[in-house]
Formats: sequence, structure tokens, C-alpha cells
Amino acid sequence: MNDKFVIGLAGMPGAGKSVVVSVARASGYSVVVMGDVVREEAKRRRMKPTPENLGEIMLELRKKEGNSVVAKKCIPKIEKTKESKVIVDGIRSPSEIEEFKKHFPKLTIIAMQSSPETRFKRLYHRQRSDDPKNWKIFRERDMRELSVGLGEAIAMAEYIIVNEERLEVVKEKVKEVLRKVEKKWTK
Amino acid sequence: MNDKFVIGLAGMPGAGKSVVVSVARASGYSVVVMGDVVREEAKRRRMKPTPENLGEIMLELRKKEGNSVVAKKCIPKIEKTKESKVIVDGIRSPSEIEEFKKHFPKLTIIAMQSSPETRFKRLYHRQRSDDPKNWKIFRERDMRELSVGLGEAIAMAEYIIVNEERLEVVKEKVKEVLRKVEKKWTK
Repeated sequence: MNDKFVIGLAGMPGAGKSVVVSVARASGYSVVVMGDVVREEAKRRRMKPTPENLGEIMLELRKKEGNSVVAKKCIPKIEKTKESKVIVDGIRSPSEIEEFKKHFPKLTIIAMQSSPETRFKRLYHRQRSDDPKNWKIFRERDMRELSVGLGEAIAMAEYIIVNEERLEVVKEKVKEVLRKVEKKWTK
Repeated sequence: MNDKFVIGLAGMPGAGKSVVVSVARASGYSVVVMGDVVREEAKRRRMKPTPENLGEIMLELRKKEGNSVVAKKCIPKIEKTKESKVIVDGIRSPSEIEEFKKHFPKLTIIAMQSSPETRFKRLYHRQRSDDPKNWKIFRERDMRELSVGLGEAIAMAEYIIVNEERLEVVKEKVKEVLRKVEKKWTK
């Protein structure tokens, strides 16, 4: 058991999770990125972190060690963080939420949400190495994310932030949610 | 193919879908309730509309006629509505969305969202015949809804309305979304 406040952040690709992370970091949160677990595993295996390799490692880990494997591997990382408030970026399923809840009772799930059209436009203009080049690839990636349980995690979130407005407006919404979460756990 | 504007409404139990329906009705929308398909089937079979009977019929229909059976049975109902704008209450999966989209290209998905805590309190105080008496039953119902794909439908919604504020505030949000949807399809 651990007394840290932990925020689990969920959101579809391009929903703007990074906005929540940056606001939380500026508010004194430590940040743990769930995807890093898979990237570290790639490094350990001396594989390049291409989307294909990362996807393959991810599926293999889940098959071998169960659906909450990534959450399990994140727990010591969360415990080791400097701050008493931690944001965990990239919750993907109810089983991960259950896993975190066992170790960190002060867990809150926040979901960032944007329409598919908005998300596609954002990712299309971002063009990180794993960002979609067209609507078909975008949909396929959405379906992959949903297949592991991301929709359920979003539907069960305690706070939903709709990210369709100007960045400043959305940042204010994030700050308000963080205030509410902290108020809940400090009372 | 049909030229009606159709809004597909998704939301977890207790999220407040009825608020969206009542605002839409007052704004001139016809209303089609997906659950009525199952209730009518119960009537046809001379079965009482208890939650158990309805659940059983629902599963049987899905098994026999596929996951989008309820959507398919709603299509003639939507076509027969009086108004050119229709709200369809109770979208539960991406396969239903696909089915509607084939017949009504001017389809927009709206999701109503509240935290599990808020939803439980609402349902607990509502106590309709199928409303949960405790947190365990509430969670089980959530899980049933999620198992058919409701989380995915919510995660893919084009508009999300967060229902955590006073009714008047939420109604204004609904009106704004309806204005946006209509603007999109009339331009």
C-alpha cells in the first residue's frame, strides 16, 4: 500500500494527453509514462523502437504475463518517484486500473477526449514516427487501442476533459480537475 | 439512403441521456428508443418486461441475428418518424454505429458522460425497476454494458457532454451541441 496520489490518464491517440501531463508536471507531479516500459524492453532486447517492434513486444508481454503486465511493471517506477503526486500517462484498460488501485488506493482516472475528426487532424499535423498518414491507418490504430480496453477505461473515468477548445481554455480545465482531485484526497 | 439528420446517443447507465433526449425533443427532434425494440419483442412473446426477461431476449436476438440486430430493427422506426431530425437513444456499440451510418449518412454520435460515483448516486435515487440497489449491482450492470461495446461507442463519439453540473448548465451544453450538429449538416 502506498499513500501517493496517483492520476491514471487515459485517452485515444491524439486526444491531447500531453496537455494534461504538462499541466500536471508544472503543478508538481512526477510523471510515469506507461509506454516507456515497452520501449525499455525493446532496448534490453537490442531492438529498434519502431511502431512494429513495440507493438510486437507489447502483445508478447501481455500474452506471457497477462493484460495488466505494463501496469505491474510501472508500479516500482511510481513508488520510486520523487513527488507525492504522480501522473501515469497511458492507461489502456480496466485491468490496469484494478492493478494500480491495489497498490495506490488514492488513484483517480482522468480521460482526455476529442472527436475522431479533431484527433485525426492533430495527429496528421504532428507526424511523429508512429502517427497516421491517412484516415484508414488512423482508424486501424483506434481499433487496436479499443481492442485492449481503452474505451472501457475512458467510459469509467472519474473526470472527463473535453479537448476541443483553445489550448489556454483546456489548460484551465485541467488545472480545475487537478484541484478537485487534490481536494478529494487531502480532506 | 436517407436524408434525415440522425443523432445516436450513447452513455453509461445514469449518465443522463434523458436530459439530451428531452432537450432534443423540445428542439423538434423525433425520438427513437432502442430499448423499445426489446420491450416490443417481449410483448410479442407475451413475456413480462422484467430486467431478466429483457436481458435474455436481448442476448438471444444478438446471438440469432448478430450484434447490430437492435440497430437493424430501429431503422424502419427512424425512417417512419415525422421530423427530419431524429435522436436515437441508446447506442451501445461500434457495430450499431456502422449499421446506422449505412442508412443515414448524416449520423452524429453524441456521448453523455458522468463519473461512476455521480451515476451511482443518480440511479440510486431514481430507483426505476431496473436500477441498482448497491455498488456491486451497479458495477455488474456497468460491466454488462461495456461488454457489448458501449465504451468503444463513447470513446468514438463526435461530441462529449460532461454531465456533472446543474441541470440548467447541462441543458445549455446540449443545446450548443445540437446547434453545432445542425450547422454541420445544413452547410
